Amino acid sequence: METIKYSKILDWGTILKRPSYDATGIEKKVRAILKDVRQNGDAAIRKYSMKYDHVELDNFLVKKEEFDLARKAILPALKQAIETATGNVRKFHKIQSVPQRIIETMPGVSCWQRPVAIQRVGLYVPGGGAPLFSSLLMMGIPARIAGCSEIVVCSPPGADGKLNPAILYVAETLELKKIYKIGGVQAIGAMAYGTESVPSVFKIFGPGNQFITCAKQLIQRDGISIDMPAGPSELAVFADKFADERFVASDLLSQAEHGRDSQVILVTDSAGLAKRTKIQIQIQLDKLPRKKIATKALRACKIIIVKNPDQALQILNLYAPEHLILNCRNAAELGRSVVNAGSVFLGGYSPESVGDYASGTNHTLPTNGFARSWSGLSVDSFLKKISFQRLSKSGLESLGASVIAMAEAEGLQGHAESVRLRLASL
Amino acid sequence: METIKYSKILDWGTILKRPSYDATGIEKKVRAILKDVRQNGDAAIRKYSMKYDHVELDNFLVKKEEFDLARKAILPALKQAIETATGNVRKFHKIQSVPQRIIETMPGVSCWQRPVAIQRVGLYVPGGGAPLFSSLLMMGIPARIAGCSEIVVCSPPGADGKLNPAILYVAETLELKKIYKIGGVQAIGAMAYGTESVPSVFKIFGPGNQFITCAKQLIQRDGISIDMPAGPSELAVFADKFADERFVASDLLSQAEHGRDSQVILVTDSAGLAKRTKIQIQIQLDKLPRKKIATKALRACKIIIVKNPDQALQILNLYAPEHLILNCRNAAELGRSVVNAGSVFLGGYSPESVGDYASGTNHTLPTNGFARSWSGLSVDSFLKKISFQRLSKSGLESLGASVIAMAEAEGLQGHAESVRLRLASL
Repeated sequence: METIKYSKILDWGTILKRPSYDATGIEKKVRAILKDVRQNGDAAIRKYSMKYDHVELDNFLVKKEEFDLARKAILPALKQAIETATGNVRKFHKIQSVPQRIIETMPGVSCWQRPVAIQRVGLYVPGGGAPLFSSLLMMGIPARIAGCSEIVVCSPPGADGKLNPAILYVAETLELKKIYKIGGVQAIGAMAYGTESVPSVFKIFGPGNQFITCAKQLIQRDGISIDMPAGPSELAVFADKFADERFVASDLLSQAEHGRDSQVILVTDSAGLAKRTKIQIQIQLDKLPRKKIATKALRACKIIIVKNPDQALQILNLYAPEHLILNCRNAAELGRSVVNAGSVFLGGYSPESVGDYASGTNHTLPTNGFARSWSGLSVDSFLKKISFQRLSKSGLESLGASVIAMAEAEGLQGHAESVRLRLASL
Repeated sequence: METIKYSKILDWGTILKRPSYDATGIEKKVRAILKDVRQNGDAAIRKYSMKYDHVELDNFLVKKEEFDLARKAILPALKQAIETATGNVRKFHKIQSVPQRIIETMPGVSCWQRPVAIQRVGLYVPGGGAPLFSSLLMMGIPARIAGCSEIVVCSPPGADGKLNPAILYVAETLELKKIYKIGGVQAIGAMAYGTESVPSVFKIFGPGNQFITCAKQLIQRDGISIDMPAGPSELAVFADKFADERFVASDLLSQAEHGRDSQVILVTDSAGLAKRTKIQIQIQLDKLPRKKIATKALRACKIIIVKNPDQALQILNLYAPEHLILNCRNAAELGRSVVNAGSVFLGGYSPESVGDYASGTNHTLPTNGFARSWSGLSVDSFLKKISFQRLSKSGLESLGASVIAMAEAEGLQGHAESVRLRLASL
């Protein structure tokens, strides 16, 4: 942990620079797997599942019995928790639906946008260290609300050939039936190009390591779109002297335990709070099961001491964190000055964890500075809006001359002619 | 033009396949220019402006006098047309603004999304054959409505070192002041990384050739986002026997004149209409100033004869065209079955040209099949939505147990601890 005093610093761009990851090294490998899956379908999937997940599967699709077993394996307390989270996430995402509105821009010229669900979407749920069933919740609920007609889920099986029961349980509660036990680049390839078992989709969602990210970048060239560019998870906290340092430390640690490359930044206008938080981090770190990971992530952690909350906001808006906690007095007021962040947590009783799981907001958020220009996942991510226009004869009569004048000024006589012909026929 | 009868065809995927473009050949060149601009700023811009636009400029920024001259050069009819178009596009885009809505997902758990303009955006207006001032209109208006605080425009100057007056006139009417006479890959690099003259931006918009497209793909790796993946422009028309073949032919030609790689498809349930349209195309083609370009584009044009409108819609939804004209009876009703398209034109008096310029809808639309999962440009493209949540003590008391249960099930004790600590303090 490095402590930086505001007054010393001129070049915030450099201080706040995220480590950049060069994917060129893995691109060749990823490209080869995608090509193989595209050409050889299930046979290629089987090959890479053996190689990387050490599992041999005849069928990738999860069967009814597996859902039944999973349901029985989940403890009632977790079921209750998932129900609460589902309810909140649903409520928050349902209000995002926007009705269609027709406007007459001129008499006889009607225009509107119709929101239409993306018909076929793919959701990737990573396995590895933590079984992220919450990610499935955060993708599946808006997909359902948008009304996507085909929702395909891929997740890597364990060495026993099974998926984590919580993932299956969440899938069942969301009535997602096409769950495939496929992970890694081969899963992205399967959903992008389709195989004998796995249907192809139009847009692929979900977090993942740098191989998944690279695969998602590559398939875009073939017309499949993706949720957002991904990087390591991030948290920035602004805390003032009134903040409880135990809370601040626990928030920083909850981010640090995600992965060794997690980004953690504390900005404060209180040198005292900075000191107290550092001590608390040490105390709490010792009790953490994922201590090793968190310790590595904390090495790159920065504590920035500023003069006042305004300076803090300047720096935080420049950094554009995925998650931002404002643990201070007047947090709601200060929150109005946030212009670059994925999700913001206001006050002392809004830890990042609540947004990760159950407050209702989506936890799939822009990282790596993309919060400057990207939103987190929402119902909109599973929709596109198709424009419509309908002109009556009199509508074209009113508008025609303008279209002809502009088309001719752009040197596009064919465009002008398509209007002129119609006007002449009236 | 190839005519295909529905009954003969099994593999629509192959028939509708767009030509794919391999950018690997140009990527090296584009990468080198971007790197040079990033390292050497204005000096690099100057070098490439000389090399590719054959122009030597001391200052890239358009001066007040240039705006004055441009204003005087525009004929009153074009001024009137631009005013009409601006009014309609503004009206259609203004209704896209969504108000912020706070929801209590549980007592004491408040969540909302705040739409915030992307602070700094860059708009690229291509030069070349046609001076596309309409593109500036279609990007500038939603950027203004969203409230972007810095809007940078780049466009390649002619050999005389000047921009087309219509581009400057549109810029002035939209109160866009930072117009730079820079084109090509160097313009994308300047806006992405900033130079002594040109401010860096967070998101870059605008059409362009394959070099521009490649540059836009590459800068994304450095955290700058782009409007959408671009490909050649496309039009599909469905026409029945009641359609006027002169109108149908003129629409197909207006798309074909865009560029040699333009995609044009006619789907019809009337062999007679197909025949009549072919004849009309030949007649109208001869009068077209851009005949050469249109002729090349028409070589790849497909005429598909189907059994009925339902089959037409199946094919069209599979193809997912950028522009779709339904020139038939009951167009509005048929339009309800469109699920994959960028912008749809209903009836005989709604040629694509009206949407290109002045009906009010945006003409920046998804191509290359991306209409399956992308929307056209809208006010949303210039915004991001930041999530907020605020929990009261009692809110955390209600929600805490669920968060702890889910965090523990995902093996993230640090996440659980950040809630537990707070609950213990209450």
